[in-house]
Amino acid sequence: MSSTAGQVIRCKAAVAWEAGKPLVIEEVEVAPPQVMEVRLKILFTSLCHTDVYFWEAKGQTPLFPRIFGHEAGGIVESVGEGVTDLQPGDHVLPVFTGECKECRHCKSEESNMCDLLRINTDRGVMLSDNKSRFSINGKPIYHFVGTSTFSEYTVVHVGCVAKINPAAPLDKVCVLSCGISTGLGATLNVAKPWKGSSVAIFGLGAVGLAAAEGARIAGASRIIGIDLNPKRFNDAKKFGVTEFVNPKDHDKPVQEVIAEMTDGGVDRSVECTGNVNAMISAFECVHDGWGVAVLVGVPNKDDSFKTHPVNLLNERTLKGTFFGNYKPRSDLPSVVEKYMNKELELEKFITHEVPFAEINKAFEYMLSGDGLRCIIRMNA
Amino acid sequence: MSSTAGQVIRCKAAVAWEAGKPLVIEEVEVAPPQVMEVRLKILFTSLCHTDVYFWEAKGQTPLFPRIFGHEAGGIVESVGEGVTDLQPGDHVLPVFTGECKECRHCKSEESNMCDLLRINTDRGVMLSDNKSRFSINGKPIYHFVGTSTFSEYTVVHVGCVAKINPAAPLDKVCVLSCGISTGLGATLNVAKPWKGSSVAIFGLGAVGLAAAEGARIAGASRIIGIDLNPKRFNDAKKFGVTEFVNPKDHDKPVQEVIAEMTDGGVDRSVECTGNVNAMISAFECVHDGWGVAVLVGVPNKDDSFKTHPVNLLNERTLKGTFFGNYKPRSDLPSVVEKYMNKELELEKFITHEVPFAEINKAFEYMLSGDGLRCIIRMNA
Repeated sequence: MSSTAGQVIRCKAAVAWEAGKPLVIEEVEVAPPQVMEVRLKILFTSLCHTDVYFWEAKGQTPLFPRIFGHEAGGIVESVGEGVTDLQPGDHVLPVFTGECKECRHCKSEESNMCDLLRINTDRGVMLSDNKSRFSINGKPIYHFVGTSTFSEYTVVHVGCVAKINPAAPLDKVCVLSCGISTGLGATLNVAKPWKGSSVAIFGLGAVGLAAAEGARIAGASRIIGIDLNPKRFNDAKKFGVTEFVNPKDHDKPVQEVIAEMTDGGVDRSVECTGNVNAMISAFECVHDGWGVAVLVGVPNKDDSFKTHPVNLLNERTLKGTFFGNYKPRSDLPSVVEKYMNKELELEKFITHEVPFAEINKAFEYMLSGDGLRCIIRMNA
Repeated sequence: MSSTAGQVIRCKAAVAWEAGKPLVIEEVEVAPPQVMEVRLKILFTSLCHTDVYFWEAKGQTPLFPRIFGHEAGGIVESVGEGVTDLQPGDHVLPVFTGECKECRHCKSEESNMCDLLRINTDRGVMLSDNKSRFSINGKPIYHFVGTSTFSEYTVVHVGCVAKINPAAPLDKVCVLSCGISTGLGATLNVAKPWKGSSVAIFGLGAVGLAAAEGARIAGASRIIGIDLNPKRFNDAKKFGVTEFVNPKDHDKPVQEVIAEMTDGGVDRSVECTGNVNAMISAFECVHDGWGVAVLVGVPNKDDSFKTHPVNLLNERTLKGTFFGNYKPRSDLPSVVEKYMNKELELEKFITHEVPFAEINKAFEYMLSGDGLRCIIRMNA
């Protein structure tokens, strides 16, 4: 039992006081975990576009002051009532979605969209009592997607915590909490390319490159990267991308360009931009008879996906995925093992590192489109 | 060797001289089969909507005079050069699509859309020499989708002929050449409902009822039939349909009605009308997380399938199928066996029977929406 169990912990957290303003490192109080909750000591966290999107608060209901962060690695400090799967000292990845193991979704082999713990970006409090576990001088600070990892300590529902191999370096595997698993799983779990097949990846950000990494692991022989930014192409080679298409270089729709390159279309495609036209291209560029397109990117609210139904009747398949179809508690430990046995290379995704005190630099790197993942060291 | 092998056969055929006019029973000459072709004696044929659609010649290039017909059962009379899989006396089903066994599609486990023999409704001649095998007084009569079974004898590419169990009654299994296999395979091969699952079937014509039959065989516990014609509901019970929805009875979109009936959506849906709004409903009525919608019906040329991409990202799958994903030569024999072992009930689909001389009555039954399949006996 740690000496802090059952006590309020005072620690540092990066608080977003208002939309788009630099985070401020504050001393916060972190309440003990309640029923089915665990308190985690966060050692490493990284920055994902979703944090930035909700920090900018464009197009959503703003909720401030808030502690962002959802890609992280840490150690269990203490557990609340009813928690039997985890104990202090366990190495874990907190995840923005969850696995209660009891709902229809958790019981279905085909879904990871837990009814109880599915991502909720509007909720800023804990499920058990609708209260925040963070406060400053008694004033509550809101949570973010059930994780809030921009804090030295955080409280998370036990269903959102994956227990992993304690030998895994948390400063590397922390990136598996969100984007990298999302892209990797979209390819390995959903698109399922076979050895020697062709795969098109739309969008060469971290998620798209993770999707390419999945295609590389699956043994695809052609991995075609599509991006509007020509600078992305060079880096993408490290992730197995063999050919590049910039839609701006062509007068015709990119799906036609890809069909010509591949004798009728690629075997699989994965869309990682969220742009609805890229989604349509990703679907229409797969081969008839066996082509499968997988949508990963999050679209705008008013987007409409349009295609001629004959594109479907010619035996194409269109699927969407959420968090790469991984069930967080059941499946993430094996993704960590893929890294441990050198099948999956995570170092390629980590382009920057900053001490916690300089967390705002991570935002600057992301906003400038520079690099892929920036690791934030909490103890520095 | 039959005495007719290598000879021109004179026999009766129902010739469509012009669009929409009653067929005329004529004496035609049927040339011997050429390279990779077989000549079949047709014993039974039935009428499918596709025959009627091309006979009416609305919205396509008309091609007349022509011999329609593509759902049939017969016996091989003689074979052309290069044919090794079939011999005179074999019991067979001719099929409007084919399986060359050599193209990328035939070699793919995921496709049945043979590059060489895929349905071609515009071609009225044989592949080997671009000539017709039918003539009247030397004047050629066009073929239809490579089958032209409204004739006592017809010539078909060997890749479009499935050899079946000779004990199977051809007056029943002939309906497996097209519509019944299309609906059945859409459910069994593509939607793949599990025992106890819920399935929605849009359109309760022969194809939709075959899709329901597939759901019944798979052990679905709820089979919801959707049709605008309330008369269809009673018959549909025989095919395992347990509940009925008529979209006209509701003020809200039918996908919302179905979602309410099923706690969030059905596990699987199969669309058999070809109406694009029904396609959209069929997709949007499946449950998030694991729902799969399968499109079977053929849409209009200018239709556009539209949905919000979030419906996909919530882990729904949208697939189209062609001929129920059956490879004709490899898979149809096992469908015939399903009938032989009483797993599949074909008698329910056969509502009328006419002698060949009265083939135009079959058109009248179909145009009036009366019944499902009318068997045409060639020897009567």
